[in-house]
Amino acid sequence: MTSSAASGSSRITDPEETVARALQGDRRSQARLISAVEERSEAAEAIGRRLAPLAGSAHIVGITGAPGVGKSTTTSALVGLWRKQGLRVAVVAIDPSSPFTGGALLGDRVRMTEHSTDRDVFIRSMAARGQLGGLSAATPGAIRVLDACGFDVVVVETVGVGQNEVDVVRFADTVLILMAPGMGDRIQANKAGLLEIGDVIAVNKSDRPGASAARRELRAMISAKPVAPGDWRPPVLGISATDGKGLSELVDAIAEHYTATAASGQLASRRAARAAAEVSSLAEEAFMGRIDANSEKLKELATRVTGGELDPYTAAHTLLTEIGLEREMR
Amino acid sequence: MTSSAASGSSRITDPEETVARALQGDRRSQARLISAVEERSEAAEAIGRRLAPLAGSAHIVGITGAPGVGKSTTTSALVGLWRKQGLRVAVVAIDPSSPFTGGALLGDRVRMTEHSTDRDVFIRSMAARGQLGGLSAATPGAIRVLDACGFDVVVVETVGVGQNEVDVVRFADTVLILMAPGMGDRIQANKAGLLEIGDVIAVNKSDRPGASAARRELRAMISAKPVAPGDWRPPVLGISATDGKGLSELVDAIAEHYTATAASGQLASRRAARAAAEVSSLAEEAFMGRIDANSEKLKELATRVTGGELDPYTAAHTLLTEIGLEREMR
Repeated sequence: MTSSAASGSSRITDPEETVARALQGDRRSQARLISAVEERSEAAEAIGRRLAPLAGSAHIVGITGAPGVGKSTTTSALVGLWRKQGLRVAVVAIDPSSPFTGGALLGDRVRMTEHSTDRDVFIRSMAARGQLGGLSAATPGAIRVLDACGFDVVVVETVGVGQNEVDVVRFADTVLILMAPGMGDRIQANKAGLLEIGDVIAVNKSDRPGASAARRELRAMISAKPVAPGDWRPPVLGISATDGKGLSELVDAIAEHYTATAASGQLASRRAARAAAEVSSLAEEAFMGRIDANSEKLKELATRVTGGELDPYTAAHTLLTEIGLEREMR
Repeated sequence: MTSSAASGSSRITDPEETVARALQGDRRSQARLISAVEERSEAAEAIGRRLAPLAGSAHIVGITGAPGVGKSTTTSALVGLWRKQGLRVAVVAIDPSSPFTGGALLGDRVRMTEHSTDRDVFIRSMAARGQLGGLSAATPGAIRVLDACGFDVVVVETVGVGQNEVDVVRFADTVLILMAPGMGDRIQANKAGLLEIGDVIAVNKSDRPGASAARRELRAMISAKPVAPGDWRPPVLGISATDGKGLSELVDAIAEHYTATAASGQLASRRAARAAAEVSSLAEEAFMGRIDANSEKLKELATRVTGGELDPYTAAHTLLTEIGLEREMR
């Protein structure tokens, strides 16, 4: 089977066996593990416990940027270059779809199909589902599966609109921000926010008018920020993903960031922050599960709030008491 | 003082007196109450408890759309028309700013200044702060203040990118979706998601080429959806906010939606869902406060996770035990 076709939505009956097969390189089993994590199946926790000690050696690369900057094309080209270096690469593409329609903003995975028959490339789309908490808990779980299964590079690609670029940074060792010249004022206005989370900045479509001006401007913005001695200063590269221009320099810059931050200790502290975010998300998820389990109570309280009989704060305290948290809280 | 200048960030020393003044129409006190709710000050809960029984009579109107469709101009024009009907209007504009920079996507409130000397118009910007939970808890609190203070219409304006359009729907009785012809493919692709949350759809800039085609297409999409007999079917209106064309029809459509859903019971069930979301957010906030209070423990656990000594699931259970939730959970 081709890796990109791996959906793996079927139930896991024997987690131990599926894990063993996934670790041996079986794509279908790897896909099943990710599905189990993504769907928060009963097996998810056992899988996480089993794989956690095996993870930690992959380089997690986040790729983000506004719609239309060429994220898929660039990711695909980078995958090709990493493959030439003999590295095994997994891509998790996060779909910021409408929670109602299952949306399509990132749906076009077509350009990635060139890698679909490569056994050492794993491509997977994950739905954002409109649940930030859900995504925050599922993404590190999916990364862990791929990391433990021996992929050298795990790419998390997400569209850089709103909250998502912040999420990606929490899960990546190195964040690549993609830009393109002439993307319109509103998107350019958002540049500052994207710049602050970027470890490597690339201006794609560097053959277009305005590309070198955009690079100059970005470099000026970056050099204006104070950086502690020895700390990483994000390079700004010009690339053209469709014809391959500047891509090997981009691959080098991404690798350099990893090496430099590993040496300075920044990588370790970023990973600790990532682990803290994950543990916190898992705890929050357990809490939300408790609220879901008390949805009838919540409904009853909400009706009393709309009726003017109860204020929402008292209602929240009552709910927390129901869940078992409140007793010690007040 | 002008209402739009009301920032009210100063501390509330006497919540009872501030509430009393706010209820008498004092802008500065109203602004202070909103700040207290937004900043989750100690007074927030007392304010909420005091105001909850007084709220419920305002018409909460959500306005959303992609950047550049003319949300501010349209909102400003609608405010003018509501004022002509003798209605008192409050606008809460939610800034989807970068959590890092305090961003500027919606910064341009300049067009609203025409109402800044009108005592019966209240305008307030709220920062999204990159915290969805925070926004979910703060927005209904701000709405409640304005509702209880006697504003007839409370507008919640937010940019319709990503998660925000979903948030706005939870807090509004009527959701107005603004579109514009020729906004580019990616944004158009997102139309379906926006359509599903819209109670009234308006195509702004209706003098531009493609406007009537856009309206036709939207009407076709909406009439293709099955609607139960007696249920509201969103009208698609053409407007031109800058020259006022179609705006009185838009005001009428927004009022009709309120009347129709109040009669059918849909308004009540939407408000109950909103109250449930608020109660749930407040409970979640209390839980997250517990996690924050245990941040040292979380840090320690995270370090053990990155060290490969502990898996994140076990770490989450340990954290929950620390918080006092776990005992009854397992």
